[in-house]
Amino acid sequence: MKRTDRNLTMLTDFYEITMANGYLASSMENIVAYFDMFFRAVPDKGGFAIMAGIEQMIDYLNNLHFTDGDIEYLRRRGMDERFLKYLENFEFSCDVWAVPEGTPIFPGEPIVQVRGPVVQAQFIETMILLCINHQSLVATKANRIVRAANGRDVMEFGSRRAQGFAAAVLGARAAYIGGCSGTSCAMTDIRFGVPALGTMAHSWVQLFDSELDAFKAYAKEYPSGCTLLIDTYDALKSGVPNAIKAFDDVLLPLGFRPKGVRIDSGDIAYLSRKIRRMLDDAGYEDCKIIASNSLDEYLVRDMIMQGAAVDSFGVGERLITSSSSPVFGGVYKLCAIERGGLIEPKIKISENVSKVTTPCFKKVYRLFDNKTGKAIADLLTLHNETVDESLPYELFDPDFTWKRKTISNFTAKPLLVKMFDNGKCVYKSPSLSDIRLYCARQIDTLWDEVLRFENPHNYYVDLSQPLWDEKHRLIKEKTGKFKE
Amino acid sequence: MKRTDRNLTMLTDFYEITMANGYLASSMENIVAYFDMFFRAVPDKGGFAIMAGIEQMIDYLNNLHFTDGDIEYLRRRGMDERFLKYLENFEFSCDVWAVPEGTPIFPGEPIVQVRGPVVQAQFIETMILLCINHQSLVATKANRIVRAANGRDVMEFGSRRAQGFAAAVLGARAAYIGGCSGTSCAMTDIRFGVPALGTMAHSWVQLFDSELDAFKAYAKEYPSGCTLLIDTYDALKSGVPNAIKAFDDVLLPLGFRPKGVRIDSGDIAYLSRKIRRMLDDAGYEDCKIIASNSLDEYLVRDMIMQGAAVDSFGVGERLITSSSSPVFGGVYKLCAIERGGLIEPKIKISENVSKVTTPCFKKVYRLFDNKTGKAIADLLTLHNETVDESLPYELFDPDFTWKRKTISNFTAKPLLVKMFDNGKCVYKSPSLSDIRLYCARQIDTLWDEVLRFENPHNYYVDLSQPLWDEKHRLIKEKTGKFKE
Repeated sequence: MKRTDRNLTMLTDFYEITMANGYLASSMENIVAYFDMFFRAVPDKGGFAIMAGIEQMIDYLNNLHFTDGDIEYLRRRGMDERFLKYLENFEFSCDVWAVPEGTPIFPGEPIVQVRGPVVQAQFIETMILLCINHQSLVATKANRIVRAANGRDVMEFGSRRAQGFAAAVLGARAAYIGGCSGTSCAMTDIRFGVPALGTMAHSWVQLFDSELDAFKAYAKEYPSGCTLLIDTYDALKSGVPNAIKAFDDVLLPLGFRPKGVRIDSGDIAYLSRKIRRMLDDAGYEDCKIIASNSLDEYLVRDMIMQGAAVDSFGVGERLITSSSSPVFGGVYKLCAIERGGLIEPKIKISENVSKVTTPCFKKVYRLFDNKTGKAIADLLTLHNETVDESLPYELFDPDFTWKRKTISNFTAKPLLVKMFDNGKCVYKSPSLSDIRLYCARQIDTLWDEVLRFENPHNYYVDLSQPLWDEKHRLIKEKTGKFKE
Repeated sequence: MKRTDRNLTMLTDFYEITMANGYLASSMENIVAYFDMFFRAVPDKGGFAIMAGIEQMIDYLNNLHFTDGDIEYLRRRGMDERFLKYLENFEFSCDVWAVPEGTPIFPGEPIVQVRGPVVQAQFIETMILLCINHQSLVATKANRIVRAANGRDVMEFGSRRAQGFAAAVLGARAAYIGGCSGTSCAMTDIRFGVPALGTMAHSWVQLFDSELDAFKAYAKEYPSGCTLLIDTYDALKSGVPNAIKAFDDVLLPLGFRPKGVRIDSGDIAYLSRKIRRMLDDAGYEDCKIIASNSLDEYLVRDMIMQGAAVDSFGVGERLITSSSSPVFGGVYKLCAIERGGLIEPKIKISENVSKVTTPCFKKVYRLFDNKTGKAIADLLTLHNETVDESLPYELFDPDFTWKRKTISNFTAKPLLVKMFDNGKCVYKSPSLSDIRLYCARQIDTLWDEVLRFENPHNYYVDLSQPLWDEKHRLIKEKTGKFKE
């Protein structure tokens, strides 16, 4: 199970180490702690995010171990010998629940839950956040662009502008979950089976004596997948005529039809319509037009509204970095501890109301309307509560509690799935294409109002009455202390 | 030299492969090509960027090789056997020049140059861009924040919000080059010697029966480096009084002075002044105040202007993702080819004027005023030109050519350093702390006007007359063709 070639154990904030060592020094290492990962705001002010990064989180947890070098480093940094001994014999023993990849997720609900000895449950904070924050960010952004493309293909083209190696490879993986149909990144194809595609750069065209020579050479070498980049010199005056000539003179005689032409500059709405007409007039109605050049969901939507004749979009830097909103702000907070068999809820108070945490070991349900199949709301409950689907259930806004709504004829689907049991992985990730399909289907359960790019409807994440009561009891208890 | 544990060879856009295979199929693989990497705009509309990522680029190039698995994949993807044979026996044989890490760099000038067989020089495009784009982005952002802090420490705290594993570790490396004094990331310390620091999360405090117990336990365990997080409940009413009590009751009796207190929420300008007074009144004038919480260069600058009593800033997501400007748009363009011993310049024309490339195999000089030591301008010349420092030199704006200026008593320092000679690495990266120091000193050679955050003075990147002439000859030649 341990794969030392991908040991990310020390990719951790140093304070996780300081605290772990401190818990042992204070003989508190075996207090059982419960942590929730959740996020507070959807990137780009969207209506929902998409869960991604679970497979990498699982890899990390399966590989957790401290090498001799790590331990030597920690010794130099002054950690106690007892702690180093503990790390030498480290055996991961937490329980971990998480929302499966591809699921729409909403602010304020636990998307990962960890239960275990505090020394361990605390230590894994940094990497759990890193894995989920990064890929959820990119899956969410990719999905916005895919929805803007409205059925047309979106390809992820951003490796060169990604924030590092993993950002390129795992970003392309996340983009595929979000609905992209492929990537430019060969390594993502090798490692995850995301279809990698790519034809030529401008330099290919420049290397030949003429654009026509470059196109003919390409058509001869790749007759079955001939896509030509037509904007090296002038798309309309040179690129398209030369492409048509290469199709006529090389491709057809070889018995093939062209696949596409790509434009990477200029006004794509205008050019694409002109190019479409030229290709159609030459008898290449089946030749696709692929557009790239600093695209995002807004440009894609606008171009389609303006009648752009684009069949496929290549999206680079604005997708792979989620450039308009490049941070997914997931946090990892203590919500309970267990001592002597009793679970004791924990809360973090903040002057900033939105930063007050929801305490307790919880369950998360998504409530679906049985008639429409649509998601009504998510509901957080105490862990030992049950939701009786046969009875009407009253939901209420946790802030404006007079806003109430009673639902009936619904299904309550638990969102969190157990992935580790006492440190052993008990979950098998679906194939990436299954995750992608599942994602698309889950998004279909959301109302259009939630899918809107701007000012989407605020999907409800409610607390059950017992959980709400417990939270407010603790707020009172904690804030009461400091009243003047 | 080859280290198979870090083989990033296939982290490439698929079109690099398609083109490479095509060059062999067209018997063009040994045409010698010259490529420039350059960028067009400084992130955050700043006056300059900072070069970083060279060490990782060198690692990548030193490790370039195709495994059996890679070749099998490419066979499945339909590549020619002759190409696969070539990859099996692949030996990197390019020359590579680059601007050393830590150097201020400006739009439009080559920062990496590659010369070699086109099949190779083209293939390495994606990773060269990825390495340099990512780290230059973060080094540039970090430096802005460090300059805003005006002598106070800035710590990189962003691992959990980084865009993937490499973004965390190499981002922290780049932040250090840009002037940060340390990182939260333990792995960056192990791998690159960037000092990693960290004390406690709110959960540490919550785990104990009281905040005071938590502080005392920490002080006892870490007497020599005691920094306490004081905002779990209420910084002023609970955190500071408890910290002072822990210092008094635990630290002093052990013979130690406190190191600091950290606040991670609330109004830092206001709180820090109050906290400073409370600490001073208790006799802890030497106790530092560390602030974190969604900081960037603007907030840091504003807080200092408002008299915040902060000694050290912990900066997370806005640094590690360069969130206000998360893309460094470096590109890699063909500028010449060599056939039969003759160098033939290449240009890429674009309707977008700023996207027209500068052709030719070039040299890049930084011109320093001998009196002030300040940088006057950067100058691109043909490769075989010389700049005679003993004579006055006339600079001119390459767009508005009537803007001219004659300089004398200057030194012309070549910016590009040879790093690979015929595929062999001939460059040894300085230590990271030397790079950091070099960076700070180079920034000192820039005028304050260039350092401004907003609307900085536009530093000149000029072309020599022969290079300008050659560029405009080619523009005329290329655009003449498509005139109607």
